[in-house]
Amino acid sequence: MTSHISHTSVDCRDAYALSRFWGAVLGYDGMPGEPDEPGDEECLLVSPDGAIRLLFIEVPESKSTKNRVHLDLEPVDGTREEEIERLLGLGATLLADRRRPDGGWATLADPEGNEFCVLRTRAEREATGGL
Amino acid sequence: MTSHISHTSVDCRDAYALSRFWGAVLGYDGMPGEPDEPGDEECLLVSPDGAIRLLFIEVPESKSTKNRVHLDLEPVDGTREEEIERLLGLGATLLADRRRPDGGWATLADPEGNEFCVLRTRAEREATGGL
Repeated sequence: MTSHISHTSVDCRDAYALSRFWGAVLGYDGMPGEPDEPGDEECLLVSPDGAIRLLFIEVPESKSTKNRVHLDLEPVDGTREEEIERLLGLGATLLADRRRPDGGWATLADPEGNEFCVLRTRAEREATGGL
Repeated sequence: MTSHISHTSVDCRDAYALSRFWGAVLGYDGMPGEPDEPGDEECLLVSPDGAIRLLFIEVPESKSTKNRVHLDLEPVDGTREEEIERLLGLGATLLADRRRPDGGWATLADPEGNEFCVLRTRAEREATGGL
């Protein structure tokens, strides 16, 4: 017996706004035929192939400490630097910069302060090895 | 431009022990040819199809509050009740029971207190509709 991951849930203050941010980051959309709307307390994003789902759920309590679970992203197109500029333009903030020419990562926060990291692109990794 | 999720990171006290628990929950294993060992401060699990990766990273700080990001699981085989019994046997604890015959979920914690939910199996959902 095993379980599979149905979805990853993210507690938040504004489910619609945060789902819009992450939808733009990952290229995910809502469930076909079930569009989320401003004010919805639960908003679901689905990856284009349907395999990965993120559920944003409004909760009364605020974020109070660094999240113990976070997403690590690999830019699909362009360069890591271009992708980080795009994410900052979408409303992310830079928390910590551990980028090196041959690796490392940048730690960003989404508009509600949830930490996430941006690694190098696959092409960048294959050019030098390492993470 | 978009990013894809390279992996989900989980801060922890004992990366090896926690990765063994989640490996048994999900049927994931370490990277082929790169087995993790007790004492490793970072342990990586990969789904059988290679699409999903979980990285357990030891950190100095303890868990202090409810996680704002958590996994929701769907049992693949058997029934929800059988799977919850299996997970409790692996070292999970039951935090909240919101199961109903026609839906709902149980909230469990992993051995380090990280919350996760167990939904119904796909067959159970399809029998009655709903989540």
